[in-house]
Amino acid sequence: MAGTAHSGERRPLPASLVGALEERFGDRFQRGAAVLGQHGSSESHFAPVLPDAVVFAHSTDDVVALVKLCAAADIPIVPFGAGTSIEGNALAINGGISLDMSQMDTVLAVNAEDFDCVVQPGVRREELNLHLRDQGLFFPIDPGANATIGGMASTRASGTNAVRYGTMKDAVLSLEIVTPQGTVIRTARRARKSAAGYDLTRLYVGSEGTLGIITAVTLRLHPVPDTISAAVCSFETLGGAVDTVVQSIQCAVPLARVEILDTKQMIAVNRWSKLDYPEAPTLFFEFHGSAMNVAEQVETVKTLAEANGGSAFSWSNLPEERSKLWRARHEAYYAAVNMRAGAIGWATDVCVPISRLAECIAATHVDLETSSVPATILGHVGDGNFHVIFSIDPNAPEEMAEVEAINARLVERALAMDGTCTGEHGIGIGKQAWLVAELGDAVEQMRMIKRALDPQNLLNPGKIFAL
Amino acid sequence: MAGTAHSGERRPLPASLVGALEERFGDRFQRGAAVLGQHGSSESHFAPVLPDAVVFAHSTDDVVALVKLCAAADIPIVPFGAGTSIEGNALAINGGISLDMSQMDTVLAVNAEDFDCVVQPGVRREELNLHLRDQGLFFPIDPGANATIGGMASTRASGTNAVRYGTMKDAVLSLEIVTPQGTVIRTARRARKSAAGYDLTRLYVGSEGTLGIITAVTLRLHPVPDTISAAVCSFETLGGAVDTVVQSIQCAVPLARVEILDTKQMIAVNRWSKLDYPEAPTLFFEFHGSAMNVAEQVETVKTLAEANGGSAFSWSNLPEERSKLWRARHEAYYAAVNMRAGAIGWATDVCVPISRLAECIAATHVDLETSSVPATILGHVGDGNFHVIFSIDPNAPEEMAEVEAINARLVERALAMDGTCTGEHGIGIGKQAWLVAELGDAVEQMRMIKRALDPQNLLNPGKIFAL
Repeated sequence: MAGTAHSGERRPLPASLVGALEERFGDRFQRGAAVLGQHGSSESHFAPVLPDAVVFAHSTDDVVALVKLCAAADIPIVPFGAGTSIEGNALAINGGISLDMSQMDTVLAVNAEDFDCVVQPGVRREELNLHLRDQGLFFPIDPGANATIGGMASTRASGTNAVRYGTMKDAVLSLEIVTPQGTVIRTARRARKSAAGYDLTRLYVGSEGTLGIITAVTLRLHPVPDTISAAVCSFETLGGAVDTVVQSIQCAVPLARVEILDTKQMIAVNRWSKLDYPEAPTLFFEFHGSAMNVAEQVETVKTLAEANGGSAFSWSNLPEERSKLWRARHEAYYAAVNMRAGAIGWATDVCVPISRLAECIAATHVDLETSSVPATILGHVGDGNFHVIFSIDPNAPEEMAEVEAINARLVERALAMDGTCTGEHGIGIGKQAWLVAELGDAVEQMRMIKRALDPQNLLNPGKIFAL
Repeated sequence: MAGTAHSGERRPLPASLVGALEERFGDRFQRGAAVLGQHGSSESHFAPVLPDAVVFAHSTDDVVALVKLCAAADIPIVPFGAGTSIEGNALAINGGISLDMSQMDTVLAVNAEDFDCVVQPGVRREELNLHLRDQGLFFPIDPGANATIGGMASTRASGTNAVRYGTMKDAVLSLEIVTPQGTVIRTARRARKSAAGYDLTRLYVGSEGTLGIITAVTLRLHPVPDTISAAVCSFETLGGAVDTVVQSIQCAVPLARVEILDTKQMIAVNRWSKLDYPEAPTLFFEFHGSAMNVAEQVETVKTLAEANGGSAFSWSNLPEERSKLWRARHEAYYAAVNMRAGAIGWATDVCVPISRLAECIAATHVDLETSSVPATILGHVGDGNFHVIFSIDPNAPEEMAEVEAINARLVERALAMDGTCTGEHGIGIGKQAWLVAELGDAVEQMRMIKRALDPQNLLNPGKIFAL
C-alpha cells in the first residue's frame, strides 16, 4: 500500500474517495476555499499549505470510517484542532484530508471524587474549566492559546502552570485512539497509575497525530486551591529574576506559575494590553494553597526577590485582577508580534536545565540586540523553558533569513547546555533537523515505531521526521 | 535471524558464544550453580528458572559487546537488577544470559541546582539517598524493597511516596539505552520538559527490559522538606480509613505518604517488627513541608480522621522513630509471608479509581475471609493501589490453585471498576492474560512496537506478552 503519502508526492483526491466521503459525511465534507484556507494556515510564520478537503468529525465512528476510506485510497489524514500550533504541526504538507476535531467538543464525564474527567478532543481548555468551575476542580495546563485538549495532547503542551502541575504527559491518564488500521483502542484504564505493559498513553502524547487519532482524553484534575494570589515584580537584571526563581525552587516553594518577560516584552505588553508596568525584566507569579501556606510562600519569595534586585510586589488577588494580569501574559505573543504594523510572528522555544537558564537567556539577549528584527523573550522560568517571539515583515525575505540564523544559534546554544530544541511547541516541520541534532540515533527508534504502527504513512506524514 | 528466542524453545549456549564471552568478560562470565540459582529465582511464588549463564556488566561498552555477541548467536538476554521484582519479570524463561547490572552502581553526577542526578542502573535507591543526603536532596520513589534504579525504571515502580511525588514515569528524565542492535541512544536531554518527538523515555520506563537495556538513568530529585512528620492512626473500619484519605485529597492536602494496612497485616507487623500498634485497620501517614504547613496539613487530616472513626494520632517525628515506623511498613511483606513457618509469599496488586477503592478492598476482604490461605491487605491508598499478600505452603498445590482463583477474582473486580491489573508490579509472566483483558487491542500495538524495535526477540523474551 506504500503510495503518495509515504513518498511525499501530492496526488488529487480520487473521485471514488470524494464520492464515498460525500456519501458518508454529507456537508461535513468540505472543499470550499475559505474552509481549506482556514485549515491550511497556522499562527506562525509558515506559508499556508491547503489540504484537499476538510472533514468535520462528530464521533469515533466517523474517524474510523474516514481512516478506512483514506487507507484504501492511500490519501493522508492530518488531524486538526484549534489551529494554534506553532511549528506547522497541523499543516497538510502532503495534501489529503484535514480532519477537523473541533466539533467533538463534549465533556463526556467528570469524576469529581477521582479528580478526573473524560472529554472529546475538540473541547477547549477554557471551556473545560468553565464546565468544571462549580465542582471545585480545575484543569491546570495552560499554554496561553485556547487550544483543544486533543491538540494539546498531540503536541505535549504545557505552559504557565507546568512548574507545579506538569505538562500534558502528566495530565493525560488515558486516550482513546483510532489507529491507522481503523481499530479503536484505549491506552489505559482510569486508575491513577498502572504498570500494565508499554506506556502507550505517553507514546501518543506528543506524537503530533502521526501514530493515531485521538478521539477521547481522560484528564487528571486538581482541586481549586483555597487561596490564589498573583503578583508582578520587576528586576534590575534578567539574571536577578532567574536567580529568584531558582532559589525559590531550592527552598521548595511550590510556585504555581512563574513567568519571565524581558524589557522589550514588557514594553509590548504595556502598549498592547494598556497597562503601566515598569519596563524592566519582570516576573509574573501565582501562588496556590491555603491562606496560611500562600502567605508563607509569598514571604519566602519576597525575601529572595529583594536580595536579587527585585521591586516591591504588585498584587492581583481579586479574580478579575488576576484575569487581567494573566490575560496580559496570554496576549504577550500578539503584543510582541504587533510591535510593528503589518508584521507576522515567528515564535520559537527551547528548554535548558535551570542552572543554565540565566546564561542561555543572557546570550540570546545579546544575539537579539544585534538583530534588525524586533524580538522579545518570555518564558516559563521554573521549567527552564523560554520563547523568543520575532515580529517579522512578511515582505522582507532577508528578515526571515536573519531570524532563521538567530533561531539556529538559539537551538545550538540550548543543545550545548544539554537542553532541548523545543520545550513545548513540538517538532512539526520547523525543528526536524534539530531533533536529529538533539537525539541522534534515538530518532531512528522513533522512525521504527512510526513505520511499525503506520506502515502506510497515512497519518500526518512528513511531521517530526521524514521517513 | 528468527530463532530460539523468538520461538520460545530453549537451546544450549553455542560453544563459540561461550568462548567469546569468556574472552570478553573473563570471570564476569559465570556458570556456577550458585550464581545461576541466585539469578533464576525471585522474591515471589514463581518456580525458579535458571539462565544458562550470568554476565556482570561494568560499562555501557560491556552491554554493547554482549548484545552484539548474543544477537549473532541468537541467544536471549535478560537484564537483572536486585531480583526484587514480583511478577517473574527477570526470570530467564527462555534461558540465555542473565545480564547482572548490579555492579554498575556509580552515581555519575548530581546536579543540585537542577534537582537531578545521573546514575548507573545498578545504584540502589537507599544508597542513592545516602549519597544525596548532604546536598539537601532526595529521590522519593520508594517501592519498599531496596531495588536498583534500573529495575525500578524497568517495571515503572512507585510505592509509598507516589501519591505526592509520582512514579518512575515522573522521576526519570532521560535514559541511556543499548538497543537490541547494539546502538547506544539517549532518550532525552537534561531539560525538565521537552516536546521533541516521541516520548521514548516513557516507552522504555515500564517496558521490563523487552525493548532495550538501560545503562544510565537521569532522575529528577526533590529538596528535602524542612519538616517531616509521620503518624499512625487506627480506624474502626477499613472504609473509614479510605474515606479519610479521599477527603484529605479533596481538601488538597499534599500527603507525602499514606499507607493502609488491614487488621491481619497489623497483627503480622506487630509480631514481625516487635511493635504494639492497635490491631485494627490502620493508616500510616507522612507529611512534608514547612513547619507551619505541616501543622496545617495535620490539623485537616486529624479532623477528617476523627469524623471517620479514627483514633488519636501516634506520632513519629524524630528521624529514628520515623525510620522505625517505615521499616515496619517496608517489612510488611516479610511480616505477612512469615505468619506461617516455612511459607512462601505470593504478592499481587491492583489499582482502581480512588472512588471505588473502599468497595474494592471490602469485597476483596470478604473473598479472603473464605480462603484457607492466610492473606493480608496493604496499599498506597492515595493512588487507589493495594496489595494482597498470601502466605502459601509451598508443599500444598491446592493452596496455589486457591490463590490463583482469588487473584483472578481480584483482578476481575479491579477491571470491572475501570482499574488496572497491576499498579506497580508490572506484567512479567504473572499477569499476561489480564493485560489483554484490560487493554484489548491496545496490546497488539505493543506487540507491533516490540517486533519493530526487537525483531529478533532478543531482550527478555516472553515477558509482558507472547509474540
